[in-house]
Amino acid sequence: MKAIIIAIGNELTSGQGLDTNSAYLSRALGEAGVETIAHQTVPDDRAAIAGAIRAAAESAGLVIVTGGLGPTPDDLTREALADALETELRLDEKSLAEIEALFQRRQWPMVPENRVQAMIPAKAEAIANSCGTAPGIAAKLGGCMIFVTPGVPREMKAMFENHISARLPSRQGVILHSIIRLFGEGESGVAARIKDLMHRSGPVVVGTTVADGMVSIRIISTAGDAAVARQQSDQITRQICQRLGRLVVGIGEDASVSQALGVALDRVGQSLATAESCTGGMVGEMLTAVSGSSEYYLGGVIAYANQAKRDSLGVPEELLAKHGAVSEQVAAAMAAGVKERFGADWGIGVTGIAGPAGGTDEKPVGLVYTSLAGPDGVEVAKHSLAGDRYHIRRRAALAALNTLRLKLPETND
Amino acid sequence: MKAIIIAIGNELTSGQGLDTNSAYLSRALGEAGVETIAHQTVPDDRAAIAGAIRAAAESAGLVIVTGGLGPTPDDLTREALADALETELRLDEKSLAEIEALFQRRQWPMVPENRVQAMIPAKAEAIANSCGTAPGIAAKLGGCMIFVTPGVPREMKAMFENHISARLPSRQGVILHSIIRLFGEGESGVAARIKDLMHRSGPVVVGTTVADGMVSIRIISTAGDAAVARQQSDQITRQICQRLGRLVVGIGEDASVSQALGVALDRVGQSLATAESCTGGMVGEMLTAVSGSSEYYLGGVIAYANQAKRDSLGVPEELLAKHGAVSEQVAAAMAAGVKERFGADWGIGVTGIAGPAGGTDEKPVGLVYTSLAGPDGVEVAKHSLAGDRYHIRRRAALAALNTLRLKLPETND
Repeated sequence: MKAIIIAIGNELTSGQGLDTNSAYLSRALGEAGVETIAHQTVPDDRAAIAGAIRAAAESAGLVIVTGGLGPTPDDLTREALADALETELRLDEKSLAEIEALFQRRQWPMVPENRVQAMIPAKAEAIANSCGTAPGIAAKLGGCMIFVTPGVPREMKAMFENHISARLPSRQGVILHSIIRLFGEGESGVAARIKDLMHRSGPVVVGTTVADGMVSIRIISTAGDAAVARQQSDQITRQICQRLGRLVVGIGEDASVSQALGVALDRVGQSLATAESCTGGMVGEMLTAVSGSSEYYLGGVIAYANQAKRDSLGVPEELLAKHGAVSEQVAAAMAAGVKERFGADWGIGVTGIAGPAGGTDEKPVGLVYTSLAGPDGVEVAKHSLAGDRYHIRRRAALAALNTLRLKLPETND
Repeated sequence: MKAIIIAIGNELTSGQGLDTNSAYLSRALGEAGVETIAHQTVPDDRAAIAGAIRAAAESAGLVIVTGGLGPTPDDLTREALADALETELRLDEKSLAEIEALFQRRQWPMVPENRVQAMIPAKAEAIANSCGTAPGIAAKLGGCMIFVTPGVPREMKAMFENHISARLPSRQGVILHSIIRLFGEGESGVAARIKDLMHRSGPVVVGTTVADGMVSIRIISTAGDAAVARQQSDQITRQICQRLGRLVVGIGEDASVSQALGVALDRVGQSLATAESCTGGMVGEMLTAVSGSSEYYLGGVIAYANQAKRDSLGVPEELLAKHGAVSEQVAAAMAAGVKERFGADWGIGVTGIAGPAGGTDEKPVGLVYTSLAGPDGVEVAKHSLAGDRYHIRRRAALAALNTLRLKLPETND
């Protein structure tokens, strides 16, 4: 079965609000074996909503509409659905009683406007709302099932979970999503390496996306049986991980360089301290975003001013004067200094020019040195990073953490 | 002029990713007087994309398509646009040269796959990409203008601002969006204070939203004339700012507590250092996200382990032993210690329990102390913060920065 999801609201089409309902519904439908083939966002316009419902019902077996069920005159989904069904609205006494009971329970005064929320198209059926005033609506148009839910995410989710999911046709299949997260190579390089494993259609769909400095490989496995879907997904995941080796940071939405590094440090029982200039705390923030990071992360110094590099990290004044704060020599001294002062097994350093100001011909915006001090001395890497201030800082932080991740023995999760 | 925005990607229709581009484009188009009448999300399917472009071109004068321009086989927007235009792809030599130059500048190896990004439909025109490999595309279908941009938000925004906005027809009306950003009170509290100024319809629409620990007041001002729209917007903004006083952090999408604090510190010529435990660098990261922050931010210590609190901040061992790391006393010693060691005018400290582990009955998850050391001594505030690890850390960092913002003289921007 294929589904189309329609989100209603001027605040969405004008860009003031962000539609998160459609993504939730797509994931929930996928788990029930229903593939979503499109999302649409339509303003609070009766004809536009009716037209979108009619068109969607012609190309999908399931249409879910969210929003436009409020009590105010700009809430027009009820009327538009009636138009699409070529029928009239009628008062649903059961829904009205439920709305009245809710107002009484909450001791709110019920204004006449709320009565309109109990109006349902004649050929349709009300769906109870367990956490709000507006009932949902279930209807049929030709061979297509239509469900309408409120736009409030909490009410939409409760209605989907408690009522709509049970009414979906018994699953003909399962759609499993999984994701492999990578760091250290661009999207095209990754794609070139796994070209033969990427499929745009069929039971196992494999594609790549890039976000926030990391490449992801997304796998969608479809099968009649959950065990088969899992097996297909596991097999391709294994092949990709073997092929890509240590480019693979981890599996799952939450896999990150800092989390993988944490697992590796925990395993070998070693500790880490950080010395940051241009990233200004971002490396520490990423490390401590992982619960339990106090097991291996001791802390660090944000050495933004040169004075802090000197006093808090012991970077020699003459290095700063001779080579400048953004230099191989200062990066090395920062990592070595923080390792020693914090008594850590490893010290990470970052210094660079994040921009937009501060670049020169010799040291342009995006020039970053990352450094790693460990048992065998200090290594420095030079990077030319692209993007705005945020992206340069983020890529610098990821590169610094990744250097240590690659030094540690691979973990086999 | 009316616009339809089409976002491409399996990761969007499957719910694995969230489309934020369409909301951005709707706002930007609104400011140019173009009303967005629908958003559509379509999977990486050549026929579906071509069909969506053709249908949109029939009902709108402007269609913007984002995504599907990557170098991999699942990027099919180029081919689909050629289908919709009933033409073929051809190699655009200028785009190819730009892609090759970019790879050379970044010292990346260019794989053959990247050549495909220089393929453009015969009847269309390439748009230069200032911050990525994929050029955009401009085309005409019947009376409709079509623009295609990469899906990466940064590249999409740069392309819209630098190329597409200048090609839009001269405006017939203006829709101005503005935003007032607040910190220090919840959404319902803010709404209650400005109830009489909030309007859901009419020439000036005023509403509230909440995201990432901050409340925003969004204003939409519509008029036939840009000066009138601006005047309407300025007037309501002035009224709201007068009413809400120092709850107002700033005006505009980029207004943040750290940016407002930076302006205030810059004005009085004072400096700041930070001592962070549970926020692990987030306070420093927020401060240094602002370009030019080296004028007032000296740096700080991420004192994650107790040993770091003692050695790098001079927190007395007996305070740690007697009161624990999460205590009023240790918070005070952290701020005072970092102020002294960095020779700053102000020292900020944060210590707390971000969870999900580590809470006790006496010191539950969400307990955070923030501290401020300044010319008149040290002040500590105790917070009970709700949310997950990220939200607790973010609210703690914002609260710590906001305490100093409120201490400094108000800036009148």
